[in-house]
Amino acid sequence: MTATDTTAEVLALLERGRALTTPALRTAVGKLAAPMNTVAAYHFGWIDATGRPADGDGGKAVRPALAILSAEAAGAPAEAGVPGAVAVELVHNFSLLHDDLMDGDEQRRHRDTVWKVHGPAQAILVGDALFALALDTVLDGSAPGSAMARAARRLANASRALIDGQAQDITFESRERVTVAECLEMEGNKTGALLACSASIGAVLGGADDRTADGLESYGHHLGLAFQAVDDLLGVWGDPASTGKQTWSDLRRRKKSLPVVAALAAENPAAERLAALLTADAKKPAEEFQDFDEAEFATRAALIEEAGGRRWTADEARRRRDAAVHALDGLDIPPAVRRRFTALADFIITRRH
Amino acid sequence: MTATDTTAEVLALLERGRALTTPALRTAVGKLAAPMNTVAAYHFGWIDATGRPADGDGGKAVRPALAILSAEAAGAPAEAGVPGAVAVELVHNFSLLHDDLMDGDEQRRHRDTVWKVHGPAQAILVGDALFALALDTVLDGSAPGSAMARAARRLANASRALIDGQAQDITFESRERVTVAECLEMEGNKTGALLACSASIGAVLGGADDRTADGLESYGHHLGLAFQAVDDLLGVWGDPASTGKQTWSDLRRRKKSLPVVAALAAENPAAERLAALLTADAKKPAEEFQDFDEAEFATRAALIEEAGGRRWTADEARRRRDAAVHALDGLDIPPAVRRRFTALADFIITRRH
Repeated sequence: MTATDTTAEVLALLERGRALTTPALRTAVGKLAAPMNTVAAYHFGWIDATGRPADGDGGKAVRPALAILSAEAAGAPAEAGVPGAVAVELVHNFSLLHDDLMDGDEQRRHRDTVWKVHGPAQAILVGDALFALALDTVLDGSAPGSAMARAARRLANASRALIDGQAQDITFESRERVTVAECLEMEGNKTGALLACSASIGAVLGGADDRTADGLESYGHHLGLAFQAVDDLLGVWGDPASTGKQTWSDLRRRKKSLPVVAALAAENPAAERLAALLTADAKKPAEEFQDFDEAEFATRAALIEEAGGRRWTADEARRRRDAAVHALDGLDIPPAVRRRFTALADFIITRRH
Repeated sequence: MTATDTTAEVLALLERGRALTTPALRTAVGKLAAPMNTVAAYHFGWIDATGRPADGDGGKAVRPALAILSAEAAGAPAEAGVPGAVAVELVHNFSLLHDDLMDGDEQRRHRDTVWKVHGPAQAILVGDALFALALDTVLDGSAPGSAMARAARRLANASRALIDGQAQDITFESRERVTVAECLEMEGNKTGALLACSASIGAVLGGADDRTADGLESYGHHLGLAFQAVDDLLGVWGDPASTGKQTWSDLRRRKKSLPVVAALAAENPAAERLAALLTADAKKPAEEFQDFDEAEFATRAALIEEAGGRRWTADEARRRRDAAVHALDGLDIPPAVRRRFTALADFIITRRH
């Protein structure tokens, strides 16, 4: 297949995931008591801040697409994966609501975040509600009780990892140095675990055994790390027109992302100059730092690149893409499904936003 | 049995619940990534704010005692209820962590609340972690998969109700009037649902059928409403030396609790005078209102009593105690267990803190 074919196939896959998941997601969210249903609808982009219907950007929806593909991997119909798809999307959005508040982020998907529009209490409450709804959704399906218990347990475990990852991320902010291994562990928790759950939960609901589910989970874990490596690259060198974020977005936030920690771990003059700059940066008050002009951030980005942090992260994305695809080896899954998992991995490492 | 016998039996029951649950609860909390494990240990009263071991007040622990009794109601050993006991205690404490932050409450169990000591981000994060841990605990036991799925579903449903109740409670704050029915619905969600889950989850894990579990759930729901009615009485007339709260605690917070809404619903002169006072109070800034002298609050409390709000709430507590005990009629549970459920209901409506 050409790259264009791959992209077209993946876009169709994501679109199908959205089409299958959105109605069930809307039904689930509609069960929330007022005003949480409205706040959640705003968060998902279904209405604007004044309550008028909107056609907002609900995100890439990689997780629901994976959950549905996961059911098909087990030989079950796509529909068998829908409760899992809704559940992982709910957990993902629960974490966004809480993380945006904890991190003080004011923008998400080109709009004001929930805590900014509806206040911190609603961000906490609706996040909690989406999390509870996720477990309810996965346990309230038509699959056998033991399959639902296994699926819910994977979801609860992934949620715990997600929360651990956010705890590590917050801790790293106040630390001067973070190792590459620590950064990868944090990203494995914060991004890998829920993609791992997405890639396996549909199969569990569709009747797969633990060996197949574990293989799919491993695929999703590596896919998540590839996804995050690309995210970290876009966080420094992404085009604001594509990403919807500011230039040098992660540098402005002094985030110890993969390109930064990999650059600092290198033993070369650029790494030393970068370390000296970042140590001085860390002492500056946040306002002063964010008001740096573009050239200051460009200097830091150039040093990260010169030290090797950009290349290391790009290589890491490819290594993880390969590890994801290899995790499927020996699993008894339909060839068309395997091809789609591979296409998704290829798409994720070449995306621009 | 005399009232003294009942109290002794219930205190022994609560103590046994604590003894069976605490080791498993500590093991579960110990799994959290740093610094969440420390923050949670502070919240549970196991360490003080400086990290030194403490022997803090972990609360009455009614929920774990109920969950264990619930397993015995199904003819299972007490130990079969322990994962359920740990899970309901984790959900309860998840909600305390988040509610204290949303409500701006600075004190809990005679100590500074978590958000006050460790900051809002840790209160959000550790609350989330306890919730995830609760589901993990109930799904990670030795009961059959289908029993664990049913138990987890009851827990997820109770958690949703708990969150709905908190949403309603927050909404009521900004409303001028709340009906008795609305107040009862909110309290049924905020307090009834998790006690209902506590009273049934052990039985589900212990192999009970849905009919038995539903009967126990109904017992717990009414017990929760009795518990909350007494809480609302103590919130106005409780002795600070027993409750650890300020005098007229709920009046200082202008809380639309059961005695207040019941008084306002009465058609008598005291209700009219109370309504006029509370309408004027609602317009005052919070600082000015909290600085009222004792006599001002005593006047409001006397009007609530004169209008009939105190008696109505005390009667409601007794009605709910009776409904709880009657919900057990026709269930096939051991006589000793039934007697303990009854003793617990009697204890709850006579408690002083």
